[in-house]
Amino acid sequence: MNYQEIKSQIDTKETLLCVGLDPDMEKIPEHLHKSDDVLYEFCKEIVDSTHDLAISFKINTAFFEAYGHKGWQSMEKLADYIKSNYPDLFLIADAKRGDIFHSSKMYAKAFFETLPFDAITINPFLGKDVVLPFIEFKGKWIILLGLSSNPSAYDLQLIQELETREYIFEKIFKYGSWWGTENNTMYVVGASMAYKLQQVRHLAPKNFLLIPGIGAQGGSLDDVCRFGLTEDYGLIINSSRAIIYADNSTKFAEFARQKAMEFKDEIGKILAENKKTRSNRNRD
Amino acid sequence: MNYQEIKSQIDTKETLLCVGLDPDMEKIPEHLHKSDDVLYEFCKEIVDSTHDLAISFKINTAFFEAYGHKGWQSMEKLADYIKSNYPDLFLIADAKRGDIFHSSKMYAKAFFETLPFDAITINPFLGKDVVLPFIEFKGKWIILLGLSSNPSAYDLQLIQELETREYIFEKIFKYGSWWGTENNTMYVVGASMAYKLQQVRHLAPKNFLLIPGIGAQGGSLDDVCRFGLTEDYGLIINSSRAIIYADNSTKFAEFARQKAMEFKDEIGKILAENKKTRSNRNRD
Repeated sequence: MNYQEIKSQIDTKETLLCVGLDPDMEKIPEHLHKSDDVLYEFCKEIVDSTHDLAISFKINTAFFEAYGHKGWQSMEKLADYIKSNYPDLFLIADAKRGDIFHSSKMYAKAFFETLPFDAITINPFLGKDVVLPFIEFKGKWIILLGLSSNPSAYDLQLIQELETREYIFEKIFKYGSWWGTENNTMYVVGASMAYKLQQVRHLAPKNFLLIPGIGAQGGSLDDVCRFGLTEDYGLIINSSRAIIYADNSTKFAEFARQKAMEFKDEIGKILAENKKTRSNRNRD
Repeated sequence: MNYQEIKSQIDTKETLLCVGLDPDMEKIPEHLHKSDDVLYEFCKEIVDSTHDLAISFKINTAFFEAYGHKGWQSMEKLADYIKSNYPDLFLIADAKRGDIFHSSKMYAKAFFETLPFDAITINPFLGKDVVLPFIEFKGKWIILLGLSSNPSAYDLQLIQELETREYIFEKIFKYGSWWGTENNTMYVVGASMAYKLQQVRHLAPKNFLLIPGIGAQGGSLDDVCRFGLTEDYGLIINSSRAIIYADNSTKFAEFARQKAMEFKDEIGKILAENKKTRSNRNRD
């Protein structure tokens, strides 16, 4: 999937939503627990009820891996189901892999050959060697951990370098621009870090950013859009828990749809407002 | 498995060897390709022929994951086989996981509950949240990426902080001493970084270090031991390719055993020399 195809999908659907699939056995509605494949059935219903209101699905590998090879089997089935039925949706493996070259090659094979993902989140701690095997795959994307929104993001990402005075997260964006292009590289920026987005846009003016942490984790949609939107949108906004656990009755998928719809309404207003401001600016 | 049990195993076996299981389809001997479970059969033979010459096995998850849920099934079978037949051996998942708290909890469940690993390699880039769910498991270990030996280790790990003048890798060792203890925390230090081991030992005087990169990647065993050995040994030295691909005929497992034996001889001399030096020093 290329940059233009992602943008076109946003044009058509008028949303920036990525639905995060983190299926937690303890939160999955009771009635589904009779199924042979609880994780798959739960996610499939969410996917079927929200696919036209989202541009992307993000599968969190941890929640499948917790159940070993059976969990992996559910994940494969789910990824295949999504790409077979909704091929336009941008399918992300939130796997945060990051290993040295010869291992990284195997992870790239796992997610881009054996499984049909369009993109994978990458932990850049071991440097360039990690990303090389992934960016060899044409039409596939890496999403580098840029600036996360977890409490301990400060432990390393917000350290300032002696020599250049750059912050570690700034170095990730700089390295990303050397290793890849806006056509194969995105970055994760947590919504609670919206105040850093202007700084990020200097380093990554055109790249898509994957933004988790709206809603459940307290990030502000307005701030993210104000500082992060570009002419090509440039934002994919993830919501997991607020959508997939909106309800835990037999009607959970309808409630999930309703939440996705509310998000579309909210983001729709912001996008319209943004378009107006830009066209006014261009007229002046 | 506790600190003392690892040490006792070294006392008995007189080696520091960890055999790294990175089964690469392209390098696995021809005759095994007829098997229903090539990855498992290859690794099982290596394990059976080297278990008494090693204190640890390290399974590189990437090489199994490349084949999706079937690869995961082989990995589970292998991990179960090792822990059932050789329960004393310290079993490491070289998985380099590292995600925010609620995902990390699922990865801990995967490797410490669903699978029977004693330890997992952890990518500390997202900070403390990553390690918390793992260190809740009593008798299990985290192995933090401290200082890797890949060419791009310099991209982030060897950056110096403005405020404290510490290097990023030094911060990992400092954080590790806050997050865990020498009874649940080890570190990865690449053999080519042996010249940094004195510095590392100031920050982690008693912790076990997992050292990859001897042999195939050009690290020196002498240097690693000179700067890294402690009174309780404190070193687990990994060798993957040099042992498991020593030969690719039907006799590959015998050749692997021979390589493990050569390592034992070499390390045995160093350990004996080290004991002598220490006892002389104590007598003086």
